[in-house]
Amino acid sequence: MKGNIFYAQSGGVTPVINATAAGVIDAYEKNRDMFGKLYVGKNGILGALKEELIDISTESKSELKLLKQTPGGAFGSCRLKLNDFKKSKKDFERIYNVFKKHNIKYFLYNGGGDSQDTTNKINKFFNAKNFPITCIGLPKTIDNDLPITANCPGFGSVAKYIATSTLEASLDVKSMCQTSTKVFILEVMGRHAGWLAAAAGVIKTKAGDPPHIILFPEIAFDQKYFLNKVKEVTEKYGYCVIVASEGIKDKKGNFLSDSGLKDSFGHSQLGGVAPVLSSIVSNKHNFKVHWAVSDYLQRAARHIASKVDVEQAYKLGLSSIAYAKKNKSDIMLTIKDESNKNNYKWSIGSTKLDNVANVEKMLPGNYIKASGIETTSACNRYISNLIKGENYPSYDNGYPRYANLKCKTIRKKLKSYKL
Amino acid sequence: MKGNIFYAQSGGVTPVINATAAGVIDAYEKNRDMFGKLYVGKNGILGALKEELIDISTESKSELKLLKQTPGGAFGSCRLKLNDFKKSKKDFERIYNVFKKHNIKYFLYNGGGDSQDTTNKINKFFNAKNFPITCIGLPKTIDNDLPITANCPGFGSVAKYIATSTLEASLDVKSMCQTSTKVFILEVMGRHAGWLAAAAGVIKTKAGDPPHIILFPEIAFDQKYFLNKVKEVTEKYGYCVIVASEGIKDKKGNFLSDSGLKDSFGHSQLGGVAPVLSSIVSNKHNFKVHWAVSDYLQRAARHIASKVDVEQAYKLGLSSIAYAKKNKSDIMLTIKDESNKNNYKWSIGSTKLDNVANVEKMLPGNYIKASGIETTSACNRYISNLIKGENYPSYDNGYPRYANLKCKTIRKKLKSYKL
Repeated sequence: MKGNIFYAQSGGVTPVINATAAGVIDAYEKNRDMFGKLYVGKNGILGALKEELIDISTESKSELKLLKQTPGGAFGSCRLKLNDFKKSKKDFERIYNVFKKHNIKYFLYNGGGDSQDTTNKINKFFNAKNFPITCIGLPKTIDNDLPITANCPGFGSVAKYIATSTLEASLDVKSMCQTSTKVFILEVMGRHAGWLAAAAGVIKTKAGDPPHIILFPEIAFDQKYFLNKVKEVTEKYGYCVIVASEGIKDKKGNFLSDSGLKDSFGHSQLGGVAPVLSSIVSNKHNFKVHWAVSDYLQRAARHIASKVDVEQAYKLGLSSIAYAKKNKSDIMLTIKDESNKNNYKWSIGSTKLDNVANVEKMLPGNYIKASGIETTSACNRYISNLIKGENYPSYDNGYPRYANLKCKTIRKKLKSYKL
Repeated sequence: MKGNIFYAQSGGVTPVINATAAGVIDAYEKNRDMFGKLYVGKNGILGALKEELIDISTESKSELKLLKQTPGGAFGSCRLKLNDFKKSKKDFERIYNVFKKHNIKYFLYNGGGDSQDTTNKINKFFNAKNFPITCIGLPKTIDNDLPITANCPGFGSVAKYIATSTLEASLDVKSMCQTSTKVFILEVMGRHAGWLAAAAGVIKTKAGDPPHIILFPEIAFDQKYFLNKVKEVTEKYGYCVIVASEGIKDKKGNFLSDSGLKDSFGHSQLGGVAPVLSSIVSNKHNFKVHWAVSDYLQRAARHIASKVDVEQAYKLGLSSIAYAKKNKSDIMLTIKDESNKNNYKWSIGSTKLDNVANVEKMLPGNYIKASGIETTSACNRYISNLIKGENYPSYDNGYPRYANLKCKTIRKKLKSYKL
């Protein structure tokens, strides 16, 4: 009896994680003779724990066709990191029982660092049980912080959104700065690594161009230096555009976003480094300040996806089935940079799961200029390759037409499980 | 001697105000025999006051071609409302002197309500001086709050951005709500009128669809009702998406965004109704909340402009030259809705300046459902017409290629003027 496949989406979603799902589905359809069913876990690994399996053959073909252009995680994702075997043996036994009962021989897990840790643990557990299954991790994260792989699917599209949005907002501010707003702050995601903040740097082609100041989590925030720069730039160019990573910290290592904003009832204010920076600028300088926090808008902006990013995400999905056919296990697929001097080229590779689980890749030192607030040309070149090309979704009635799946789960064979 | 034209951009900029400028320029080029020079005022009416005139023939043709796809105000805009003649006679005399010296016979002013007030005053002043010039107002405002005209250029594109962004972020939240964020709040522009918040309503096609709650400035914010709705929706559908107008007020008429956020030094926190709402939800319910403030990102999002909006903005520019040729003065051009039962159709019309100056058009009562938090089908139909069709900018290196004008002003003929 041919083995069934279990695929699931895990962790924070991206504009192109569904393109990877589309790749898995398309390659599976072309290799139907090699496999049994393709099940997708509802809400990531929760789908395995709760025995909530979506049989892909029950979804409408026309909606599945739209997956490649749909943001979010169409089958549901989760933030759930499995503990060590010893601490949560019960959970692993449950997954083992569900997989065994449903004849699952292939485990394809689509996620970032935490999720690859899960893939790794499941692989080890099944091996220890002497019931090996083919475990393949599919990378995904807008944070671009996975090691080994040259870049992470999801990052290129969000980077394109950030570069474009920063350029557009800068043109707005520049138009109005004579009589209105002079300082604009855009907060972007990135709690530990500054990859997304760095993306804004590509639009700067000469001195004076925005963004004038980029604040990276890798560089401790120096308020005096920052305020001097804001003044200097605004007086010289008439306006100042700042792109700030949500995760910037002061010299003591405290997040700026935790700097004690309170509402009128004395309740702590949730998140947002942009309003904190705005407050810092306004209290020192007499400039009108505006700020934006794009939050999930950036992470879901499929309407401005990068073509390269969509292609890589899709190809990873396709490749996972090729690797599964060959029973290549204990790996995470990677993107290999095979550029020559003039052209960006890439291919799919793989690495051992032990190499990627729980390792975070920070922005390299040579990607940030000595000023600490600008990106280097090496950084801009890296980003440029990943944001190139457009891949627009189709539209109906003026807004994108995204997939609408039923996500109906199959009948359960086991007793319900208490998480 | 043929009269010269003065065109300028005024007030908050939009993704398509430069498309109107492109229309003015293209029609002027086709009618060169009828007019002298085309001057563009640098930074709106400031350009007249400071005698800062850009001779359009000195700009690069290839950059001018990009104007139609460029957001912001490429010639600079301003927030400057002229006082009454009596209070600021000096300013009017100055404009009179500049226009006379530069043989300006046509005044084309591109802006919202305040700007049309300026057009109106200038028209009256020149008439009183017995030196009539052709004064034509060109509408523009993302707020969609000008009277008489069926809609305002700029609104359709921002509405498209908001509808798309709300849909995308909703898919993100829906994917993750099982184990992460359950409530998402998007703050949109609109200090007095709820047109932009209403735009998100078009993506709701059935009960349970996002956005679940829209907060309009036209409806007083009722905290208890709001919190109950958030709970009800989240428990029923697993997540809750809220779109809030920046200008929502409580029953006493106080802006929610002024509700007293303070930083750790006790300084008042600037703007942002989304963090205030987030705080209100978090302090009552045990749901993880995320929020976004798109601020200038929405107002500058030319990358997702509405085709209808770009066409209308451009056509208004073209038409202004047709009206100028016929010396039609004391008017603002308008968009007339000439739809029949099945098709959206429009044309350009005009109205007296007195009819539009300083009048704000709120969201009609029949566009908001009795619940106070949803739009009606009449509203959705109105919005749908204006967001239809895509009009993408061209891209270079992964981000849009926007016009880069020199904006060099001509040699001054008068002494400098103190504002």
